[in-house]
Amino acid sequence: MFEPPVQHLIDELARLPGIGRKSAQRLAFHLLNVEEADAVRLAEAIKVMRTSVQLCERCFNVAAEVECAICRDVRRDPTVLCVVERAQDIAVLEKTQEFSGRYHVLGGAISPIEGVGPDQLHMRELVARVEAENVEEVIAATNPTVEGDTTAMYLKRLLGPLGVKVTRIASGLPVGGDLDYADEITLGRALAGRREL
Amino acid sequence: MFEPPVQHLIDELARLPGIGRKSAQRLAFHLLNVEEADAVRLAEAIKVMRTSVQLCERCFNVAAEVECAICRDVRRDPTVLCVVERAQDIAVLEKTQEFSGRYHVLGGAISPIEGVGPDQLHMRELVARVEAENVEEVIAATNPTVEGDTTAMYLKRLLGPLGVKVTRIASGLPVGGDLDYADEITLGRALAGRREL
Repeated sequence: MFEPPVQHLIDELARLPGIGRKSAQRLAFHLLNVEEADAVRLAEAIKVMRTSVQLCERCFNVAAEVECAICRDVRRDPTVLCVVERAQDIAVLEKTQEFSGRYHVLGGAISPIEGVGPDQLHMRELVARVEAENVEEVIAATNPTVEGDTTAMYLKRLLGPLGVKVTRIASGLPVGGDLDYADEITLGRALAGRREL
Repeated sequence: MFEPPVQHLIDELARLPGIGRKSAQRLAFHLLNVEEADAVRLAEAIKVMRTSVQLCERCFNVAAEVECAICRDVRRDPTVLCVVERAQDIAVLEKTQEFSGRYHVLGGAISPIEGVGPDQLHMRELVARVEAENVEEVIAATNPTVEGDTTAMYLKRLLGPLGVKVTRIASGLPVGGDLDYADEITLGRALAGRREL
């Protein structure tokens, strides 16, 4: 349909998540019409990110050095570890400014359907950190899904015997939400997780 | 928030049309997690397209050579020219398989508000083609918008005196549409453009 180099770019763009064929076509023609420097800058940014970024040796967060900025920061409390599924979850948690401990990225959640067991996640490294870093509390901040809940339960069984406190982030109604629109499972969890005022 | 190379990529992605900050973040982490070869292939596709693709000397379509594939195709009827606003419009028209003539890309439509006059469009080149290529009909296939309609009227005034037939693509109800949901301007055009059965 299009000239081969344009068609090739459309094909590559359409492989990105959430980008359909029509959007890919629109993006390709946008990149054809902008200043050449702008298009090249995007191409370079992709390459530079892939060559200059690695996973933190300690927590598997995205890192520009051997360890990520959070692990290098000595002001962060080393006794509390927040366990997340993916590196991008850290940014959302950091935005809350409610947490001053460190993180550990599992790289996913336990999912028998997708063939992901504890061995495919960074569980062994987590156990080693709990034993080596005087960790007192591990917060299971995996997603409130079947897979995330399963992973949280697994963390409890795995780390409980080591004498560390394992906690789970709260499930309940979102702030500004409406009881009328809440699904019954969320509302059930909000009830079960009620706190004394 | 993120490591500088990741943040830089997010910023570049967010400059693309229809990509917000959240989507840009999601795409950046996707490119971080896929095989390095896949990410590099996308970066290369952008660069290759910009270096290997140019505008057709004759019709301003996207071209891998001096002239585009359609202008080089001797089986295309040279006596009918379809005038479009942008190069990507050609692909949609080609998909209909209803047109066997050639194209001319204006590079936009006349829009006094955006400061686009006939001099900013490839009008002079169109007149030269009409005079040199024995063109008998020019189809104004600009968008059915105020700007596109204005441009079509301008084409009529510009090319009519040269003895060439200037036609306009039909406006009306889309196939599969419903009279009940049609706006009055579209329905008015459908009435005015009625044909004998």
